[in-house]
Amino acid sequence: MEHGGDLTRAIDQYGGTFDDWLDLSTGINPHTYPVPNALSRSAWTDLPGQAALDRLIAAARKAYRVPDHFGIVAGPGTQVLLSLLPETLPEGPVSLASPTYGSHKKVWTRSGRTPTELSSVYALPADAKIVLLVNPNNPDGRLVDVKSLLEMATVLTGRGGCLVLDEAFADTVPGASILPHVTDQNVLVLRSFGKFFGLAGLRLGFLAGPPALIQKTAGLLESWCLSGPAIEFGTAALRDADWQTKMNRQLADEMADLTLLLNEHHLSVFGGTPLYALAGLRKAVHLHEALARRHIWTRIFDYAPTWLRLGLPGSKANFERLSDALAEAQKEL
Amino acid sequence: MEHGGDLTRAIDQYGGTFDDWLDLSTGINPHTYPVPNALSRSAWTDLPGQAALDRLIAAARKAYRVPDHFGIVAGPGTQVLLSLLPETLPEGPVSLASPTYGSHKKVWTRSGRTPTELSSVYALPADAKIVLLVNPNNPDGRLVDVKSLLEMATVLTGRGGCLVLDEAFADTVPGASILPHVTDQNVLVLRSFGKFFGLAGLRLGFLAGPPALIQKTAGLLESWCLSGPAIEFGTAALRDADWQTKMNRQLADEMADLTLLLNEHHLSVFGGTPLYALAGLRKAVHLHEALARRHIWTRIFDYAPTWLRLGLPGSKANFERLSDALAEAQKEL
Repeated sequence: MEHGGDLTRAIDQYGGTFDDWLDLSTGINPHTYPVPNALSRSAWTDLPGQAALDRLIAAARKAYRVPDHFGIVAGPGTQVLLSLLPETLPEGPVSLASPTYGSHKKVWTRSGRTPTELSSVYALPADAKIVLLVNPNNPDGRLVDVKSLLEMATVLTGRGGCLVLDEAFADTVPGASILPHVTDQNVLVLRSFGKFFGLAGLRLGFLAGPPALIQKTAGLLESWCLSGPAIEFGTAALRDADWQTKMNRQLADEMADLTLLLNEHHLSVFGGTPLYALAGLRKAVHLHEALARRHIWTRIFDYAPTWLRLGLPGSKANFERLSDALAEAQKEL
Repeated sequence: MEHGGDLTRAIDQYGGTFDDWLDLSTGINPHTYPVPNALSRSAWTDLPGQAALDRLIAAARKAYRVPDHFGIVAGPGTQVLLSLLPETLPEGPVSLASPTYGSHKKVWTRSGRTPTELSSVYALPADAKIVLLVNPNNPDGRLVDVKSLLEMATVLTGRGGCLVLDEAFADTVPGASILPHVTDQNVLVLRSFGKFFGLAGLRLGFLAGPPALIQKTAGLLESWCLSGPAIEFGTAALRDADWQTKMNRQLADEMADLTLLLNEHHLSVFGGTPLYALAGLRKAVHLHEALARRHIWTRIFDYAPTWLRLGLPGSKANFERLSDALAEAQKEL
């Protein structure tokens, strides 16, 4: 499966080394949760045991405000967890709110259940049984309010179906998550650890939902699929509520600065979250290429040639580098 | 799927804390490849990219002496890779040399293809199409010579089948691996990184074989299933041929010492590899329990009540602790 965000391909095409590039092509927080000076030795040496896994799950349950009657399971990244959804969920038509993160459509299509497009998240198709939404959405940041989600979930549950929410970017949008509000609806929620904590290399994600569905997913995961460092580091980060609160304020501030900068350079930001801005301009592809020649990597979309997505630069120096590059690149358009 | 080796269960039953226990229940090298003082920051923060993955594969290819015409793919532990074998391999009867590591039988049975038992590895059943051997075997260390393996592989290849070798413990047994000798046979070889390098928490393993089969497996693995630390650390360790040579001598010496110690305590070692000794005694289960009461965790087998498997103690202090505990425990039998 191909994905954006791999600098290797940028380097193949535009030269330079990894260190030369400013990678704004992802929505990964550039302010990493402090990389550990010393993980315990056993995190590296031992097969991960149940006690450590239980601590991780307890920390995730609290951080994500998972209701007591829900189950939660950890996987080596949400990519692996979302790939198991077709095997986990009941038979029936699948609707997907598009455009969105491409993997969802791919894994369902691969399983022989090509999703129909959900034209509006407020107009549930009469035959829909499983509805999948990324909320807030990637790349445009579209946010469906919790009340509407709960109503949709109730209808789907009545049909023996399920509402699936990929809350990969919900950490940075207060009030976005459905988890604290779910009662008796069939709702499955994906949570990504690596994006908000800036630790995408660690491979850690979660799926929360009704216990029967969570047990089914857990049964499909192989033993020891999580690394020791992911378990230990994930537990520490998820328990650190102070860092999470502080980081959320900081990301909102930095996104405000980035939005201003992009507007000053005639890019109108029309969507996003605190971890990425989605800008519109007629010559998005040309600007992407002009920035790439300056070794700044952004994200473009084949289905929307006027869209350009940029992550946070992460430092004053990177911010100024982007500003200078935008000024120069605009002259070439 | 349940496995041995999880100290959590030992603690539940016999008390103590993780630090109290001497865990001899696994075949993981107690002499860990030096845990990194500083992995690169990007190993933690970035989604693993293709360039880093290519370096890892090149290092594994060299370390495991994979022939040029073979492909090789990395996964988050051999457990995940071996679970994909039923989807990767052609239809037809499967034979498994037993007793052995339990997961192989479980994943094939789960896929609806219950393996028959291979009564002798030197007598290939007339209808066998896929034969699976752990070589050297776990727990008894039985080693099938490369010449016999190649002959079996040639016959199976002629039937459109395949020989699958789990070489999880081949690193410590010079000359054991079939990889340098394969020509045009259909052979798939599993290699485990964590056992020999003492880094089971890292989750890293490999599958080598004919390119078409390797591509099939690679297509079943999700993107970014390997962590950044696993890729970076794995590359460094696999490149370090000096450490590997030195470690192999050290492990052989320590296993000789352990074998002597066990013999002195009336346990006759009748199998194993430099990473584990398999001892036989009538009261194996009682000795296992008596050692557990002293917070030393060994491995017993429900199919062979006279077997006791012990890993290397790893230090002089642990060696003496085991010696004292054996002396005391024997009095209770």
